[in-house]
Amino acid sequence: MDYVNGPGRNHLFVPGPVNIPESVLRAMNRNNEDYRSPAVPAMTKILLEDVKKIFKTTTGTPFMIPTTGTGAWESALTNTLSPGDRIVSFLIGQFSLLWIDQQQRLNFKVDVVESEWGQGANLDILESKLAEDTAHTIKAICIVHNETATGVTNNLAKVRRILDEYRHPALFLVDGVSSICALDFRMDEWGVDVALTGSQKALSLPTGIGIVCASPKALEASKTAKSVRVFFDWKDYLKFYKLGTYWPYTPSIQLLYGLRTALDLLFEEGLDNVIARHSRLGKATRLAVEAWGLKNCTQSEEWFSDTVTAVLVPPYIESSEIVRRAWKRYNLSLGLGLNKVAGKVFRIGHLGNLNELQLLGCLAGVEMVLRDVGYPVKLGSGVAAASAYFQNNTPLIPSRI
Amino acid sequence: MDYVNGPGRNHLFVPGPVNIPESVLRAMNRNNEDYRSPAVPAMTKILLEDVKKIFKTTTGTPFMIPTTGTGAWESALTNTLSPGDRIVSFLIGQFSLLWIDQQQRLNFKVDVVESEWGQGANLDILESKLAEDTAHTIKAICIVHNETATGVTNNLAKVRRILDEYRHPALFLVDGVSSICALDFRMDEWGVDVALTGSQKALSLPTGIGIVCASPKALEASKTAKSVRVFFDWKDYLKFYKLGTYWPYTPSIQLLYGLRTALDLLFEEGLDNVIARHSRLGKATRLAVEAWGLKNCTQSEEWFSDTVTAVLVPPYIESSEIVRRAWKRYNLSLGLGLNKVAGKVFRIGHLGNLNELQLLGCLAGVEMVLRDVGYPVKLGSGVAAASAYFQNNTPLIPSRI
Amino acid sequence: MDYVNGPGRNHLFVPGPVNIPESVLRAMNRNNEDYRSPAVPAMTKILLEDVKKIFKTTTGTPFMIPTTGTGAWESALTNTLSPGDRIVSFLIGQFSLLWIDQQQRLNFKVDVVESEWGQGANLDILESKLAEDTAHTIKAICIVHNETATGVTNNLAKVRRILDEYRHPALFLVDGVSSICALDFRMDEWGVDVALTGSQKALSLPTGIGIVCASPKALEASKTAKSVRVFFDWKDYLKFYKLGTYWPYTPSIQLLYGLRTALDLLFEEGLDNVIARHSRLGKATRLAVEAWGLKNCTQSEEWFSDTVTAVLVPPYIESSEIVRRAWKRYNLSLGLGLNKVAGKVFRIGHLGNLNELQLLGCLAGVEMVLRDVGYPVKLGSGVAAASAYFQNNTPLIPSRI
Amino acid sequence: MDYVNGPGRNHLFVPGPVNIPESVLRAMNRNNEDYRSPAVPAMTKILLEDVKKIFKTTTGTPFMIPTTGTGAWESALTNTLSPGDRIVSFLIGQFSLLWIDQQQRLNFKVDVVESEWGQGANLDILESKLAEDTAHTIKAICIVHNETATGVTNNLAKVRRILDEYRHPALFLVDGVSSICALDFRMDEWGVDVALTGSQKALSLPTGIGIVCASPKALEASKTAKSVRVFFDWKDYLKFYKLGTYWPYTPSIQLLYGLRTALDLLFEEGLDNVIARHSRLGKATRLAVEAWGLKNCTQSEEWFSDTVTAVLVPPYIESSEIVRRAWKRYNLSLGLGLNKVAGKVFRIGHLGNLNELQLLGCLAGVEMVLRDVGYPVKLGSGVAAASAYFQNNTPLIPSRI
Repeated sequence: MDYVNGPGRNHLFVPGPVNIPESVLRAMNRNNEDYRSPAVPAMTKILLEDVKKIFKTTTGTPFMIPTTGTGAWESALTNTLSPGDRIVSFLIGQFSLLWIDQQQRLNFKVDVVESEWGQGANLDILESKLAEDTAHTIKAICIVHNETATGVTNNLAKVRRILDEYRHPALFLVDGVSSICALDFRMDEWGVDVALTGSQKALSLPTGIGIVCASPKALEASKTAKSVRVFFDWKDYLKFYKLGTYWPYTPSIQLLYGLRTALDLLFEEGLDNVIARHSRLGKATRLAVEAWGLKNCTQSEEWFSDTVTAVLVPPYIESSEIVRRAWKRYNLSLGLGLNKVAGKVFRIGHLGNLNELQLLGCLAGVEMVLRDVGYPVKLGSGVAAASAYFQNNTPLIPSRI
Repeated sequence: MDYVNGPGRNHLFVPGPVNIPESVLRAMNRNNEDYRSPAVPAMTKILLEDVKKIFKTTTGTPFMIPTTGTGAWESALTNTLSPGDRIVSFLIGQFSLLWIDQQQRLNFKVDVVESEWGQGANLDILESKLAEDTAHTIKAICIVHNETATGVTNNLAKVRRILDEYRHPALFLVDGVSSICALDFRMDEWGVDVALTGSQKALSLPTGIGIVCASPKALEASKTAKSVRVFFDWKDYLKFYKLGTYWPYTPSIQLLYGLRTALDLLFEEGLDNVIARHSRLGKATRLAVEAWGLKNCTQSEEWFSDTVTAVLVPPYIESSEIVRRAWKRYNLSLGLGLNKVAGKVFRIGHLGNLNELQLLGCLAGVEMVLRDVGYPVKLGSGVAAASAYFQNNTPLIPSRI
Repeated sequence: MDYVNGPGRNHLFVPGPVNIPESVLRAMNRNNEDYRSPAVPAMTKILLEDVKKIFKTTTGTPFMIPTTGTGAWESALTNTLSPGDRIVSFLIGQFSLLWIDQQQRLNFKVDVVESEWGQGANLDILESKLAEDTAHTIKAICIVHNETATGVTNNLAKVRRILDEYRHPALFLVDGVSSICALDFRMDEWGVDVALTGSQKALSLPTGIGIVCASPKALEASKTAKSVRVFFDWKDYLKFYKLGTYWPYTPSIQLLYGLRTALDLLFEEGLDNVIARHSRLGKATRLAVEAWGLKNCTQSEEWFSDTVTAVLVPPYIESSEIVRRAWKRYNLSLGLGLNKVAGKVFRIGHLGNLNELQLLGCLAGVEMVLRDVGYPVKLGSGVAAASAYFQNNTPLIPSRI
Repeated sequence: MDYVNGPGRNHLFVPGPVNIPESVLRAMNRNNEDYRSPAVPAMTKILLEDVKKIFKTTTGTPFMIPTTGTGAWESALTNTLSPGDRIVSFLIGQFSLLWIDQQQRLNFKVDVVESEWGQGANLDILESKLAEDTAHTIKAICIVHNETATGVTNNLAKVRRILDEYRHPALFLVDGVSSICALDFRMDEWGVDVALTGSQKALSLPTGIGIVCASPKALEASKTAKSVRVFFDWKDYLKFYKLGTYWPYTPSIQLLYGLRTALDLLFEEGLDNVIARHSRLGKATRLAVEAWGLKNCTQSEEWFSDTVTAVLVPPYIESSEIVRRAWKRYNLSLGLGLNKVAGKVFRIGHLGNLNELQLLGCLAGVEMVLRDVGYPVKLGSGVAAASAYFQNNTPLIPSRI
């Protein structure tokens, strides 16, 4: 059943799906249940309350939809917008590109604001667009918080500041797929109208739940949005929320219990500690890249991502060869470069339930692979840089003090 | 974590989600994997071939979409039809009703052909509609093979005969959610254009894969269908099929391995033996209902369902009280009556990886509950009728002969 | 990997190993751990406290030995007795016979008190032996609480009364393998000196822990007992208990977590409720046997066992054929007749994490098998008798009220 | 339930219990089964054949006893020797010491041949003892293949050569607990009479099976050996082997399936490749230790162990502080120094289902801990040395080529 077994563990460092903690695997190891019994709604009710915490919202309404991030995108858009609506969307890498593709296919009029891949969203252009748009023809701003393809984190607080400055009523829709539960994200404080993530990212679950959280303003918009939708329609959920049965169609029982445990782990560690841990992992990875003499695909510190690092390889190396070899020789799974940066970058995902030594094992592996493909890295150099940082900054595990 | 533990096993007899075999739970008990490594596409390729067998098709193209049955419906419709298209759809219970609701919200012009709940699709009306429709304004016939709310199985072969008789080119779209892998279903032979099921039904998996299978004619239709779709768009899948990477977005690794094992179990037992087993379970359930002096919601033998039996209760009993009490006292999960038959029927799901003694335990439980709620059933009567049938008809387990 | 798969669940009704609750399987689904870290001793300390509760002792000292019931027997004997010691032991079935065989091979002088299989221990003979033994040459009384081969439960309270009456200082050693956590067992009240059980019985775990509990008097005896022992020596455990590291050699991490959950389940249900549930299951089984017109191997009500029922079959039937057929046709696992009762009885184990409907499924299966082998049982008769009893006596599941 | 959770995986580098592969966890994730049904004996029969391969024997008879290594020792001794028998046993560390303690408590006359801890068995003394023993009063030579406390591997081939040279008939008993399935071990070629291991070591299972393999000569000896034994008696196994039911008492169903998968993994990788992998892991660890400027507890290359490395720490450091801190800060589990080397060494276990990057993560962790406790290691130095070796010597994973 394991098509391509290797001895020891697979070292999973793609930026999703990510490593699942053993306690989450345990929680999901169960038979199906009647989702219409009193038990599942009781659990769902609490889950919906708790899930708001990962968005840092008290006023939002979450939807846990049996779908992927792509479906969550569709749910965010179709519930709040009508065909022909004008939206501003930032193209900074493969995932923002795919979202824009979806926006266009859903018949929105998209002002695409493109940056060089490796740069963040061009907020100056946003500013000028909003300044011009006194008629409020722009209905929504769509932005990925963290572009998984390039390891670029956008400044959402600044987006909000710009919107506020121009008192622009556009909805603020955020793809938080590779950020929420890992990066600092504040739905209420930043006035985000729809935020979304997928279970297989920093929540460290299997794929299968697209979590979409809607602000009161977004919910209000959904009442008049004319985009055609059924499966992704919030209305059906809201109807069942009111009934107290919560599910318009069958949820995955296993994922609900898995989510319960995933949230327990996050809250036990403390969401701020989780974010601090990701900050350590990101910083250490970047120090290693620097020690290797390689460049981060992300062009400026302001956009550095603490969940994924895209590493530029020298022109004489094909980055996919690194990924292939890492898997074939060291049981290490790295992320490929996608689209414009295909062949040029490989990616290290450092998000989810992950600790320092796991990352150091990965970095040691990358060093060996780099030598395998002809890049004269000094073995141990990246590990040394990363572990120097860790040794100074890693706290004791609180439960073990 | 188990909100409402009871000693011993839960007896799960809702018509979905159904019991998961231990070997499937084992297969899914695993960490995530990089779905872009060579391993996952290799497995997917074989799965796509094998999954055709459960539809009995060699010419169909399957899509394993991370969604539920509701999403599978939407995929079937939006890929083959355009807004405003006229379709004929049969309303015979809650699930056909929900599908029709979806069809209408997706802006098709639906000729709703309604039957009394407990009866099958009125194919005489279909015939007259096709006879009249010489201009071929009807673009599709939508029908549930097995209405889960009433336990009614429609005659799909007859639908095909009628279509053929009138040489009508309408697409033939079938909801096989509670039939495929349990009832006799023949996609190619019956000229079905789109058939679909959900993983949590007779496949005996968790919720999370909507499997949609398209005939060549349906694929052809998808090239011109104008319904807006992105997440559910077959085109994205077909693109990745060609690339050999198979997945436009992240699949559930766990469900892929689970599906692999579920199919292995089905093929090991033999699909025809699986269907025969469901036939035994259905027949035995109906014999028990008769022995109890109760009526089957299904009004005529021609529509009897071998996957779910809706049992009518006497007017002085509220059927939801039966369901509630079964769960509270005997750890038995039965299906509620829905919508028009709410309070009037309870449902016994007898589909998926289930055997004779499991069903007899359920029937014994139903007998006790019936007495609990004041119906003077003779204890043991249903079990006796069912086990007499089983004792005459159950083959030895082939692997143990 | 499943050598002989059948559809649906295996119905496991041997009197051990018994059904494991899903939550226990979950708890054991984990990697190994360093048993010398602070975590495992911390858990062990609490387990040792909690495990006393299943023996109903506050003064006893428990040992959780990585072994089976046979090893637990050996530990009980070798730690308290010296070669040549005279002991009184009751032979009433295959397991008491095996224990006696062990006692003899360990070089004790065994007064074997034999009863007809199907009867309990002959306590009159015990009384006369104690009366005669004014010199206190008898060092221990060895008795199985529940003889698993015949379904006979001995009266331990009476043994204590006899010992007390004659003020006899003999140690009181009890095999509680198929009783503890299922039948009423009171170590302190009954002055039991060593009691033991195995994890795969009413604790509903896998095989692998022999739990032996020693009274202060037994511990005292262990200081002078001259039987050779190393692996089973309590002294090594006591040394590590003092050190606070608890384990003289590597325990099964998985079983420790499993035991934790198993105890949680027992305490959550309430030990008295667990015993009451077994009483229901036992009574219902006996009612079914009666309804079938068959005889219980146990000859008198005073010895009826609530954990296992051995059913006598008519002389023209070979009982092993029943067991074979149950497994081959209905995926039902029954217990064989052993030794003197081989071919004459089959056994229904009704202990551990089991509920009413599971047992009714088993009883329905037995009825069909009985017909298969030519016994003209009235189908449904046993189920009717059992379910009449259940319907009158089963409480609501407390957590669901 | 996890008393002391930390984010990410625990890095388990104690020399047992070791990491369990996910596929083995999967295989064990199952309910109990009737071990007297045809299925379990059928599986056992094949397991007994396959288990011989890990001992490299075709003539040996294996026993899979539900116990630990300590119990396996006892089984090896009591089945082949009689009280008062003279044996030669080598004391080179804590585990050989414990075995000798057992030998003495079992009343054998033990010639203890002691070496300094860090040295191998003194085979010169063996030679002189055998030379003197023309009367063949020495009944057995007992030796640990690999002393887990010090990381010392003894030369078993040489023991055999010495025995042969003196044509001495003494039995040759080998503790292979931390060697078999990891180091080169050849039961038949080396004329080993009893070899044993535990499931939680290189087999990478949970604790619970002590596997003892007896040569024909050992089996013959067991017929006259007078040591008292019951639970550990081979005779009971042999009786059930003949009957084809295999088990004198209840085995752990879960461990049998786990063992099946563990063996499958070993055979799939190839036993020689497994040994080569351990050789790489051992060599790399030693290179790291050297790079750190620390000493291996093992005093000479001839005894270097490829399964465990005991690292001597400078006198100003207490090694248990390293172990404590590794666990508390980095979720890294290292082995403590035991007895004579307590406080002086910490141990890195590198056996079982483990790969290069896992070890490199561990080594990086050790480096940080060393700095934490005040040893001025150059961060990255050990990782660099180890990974240079790996990068030159690690083959591609065969299934992925």
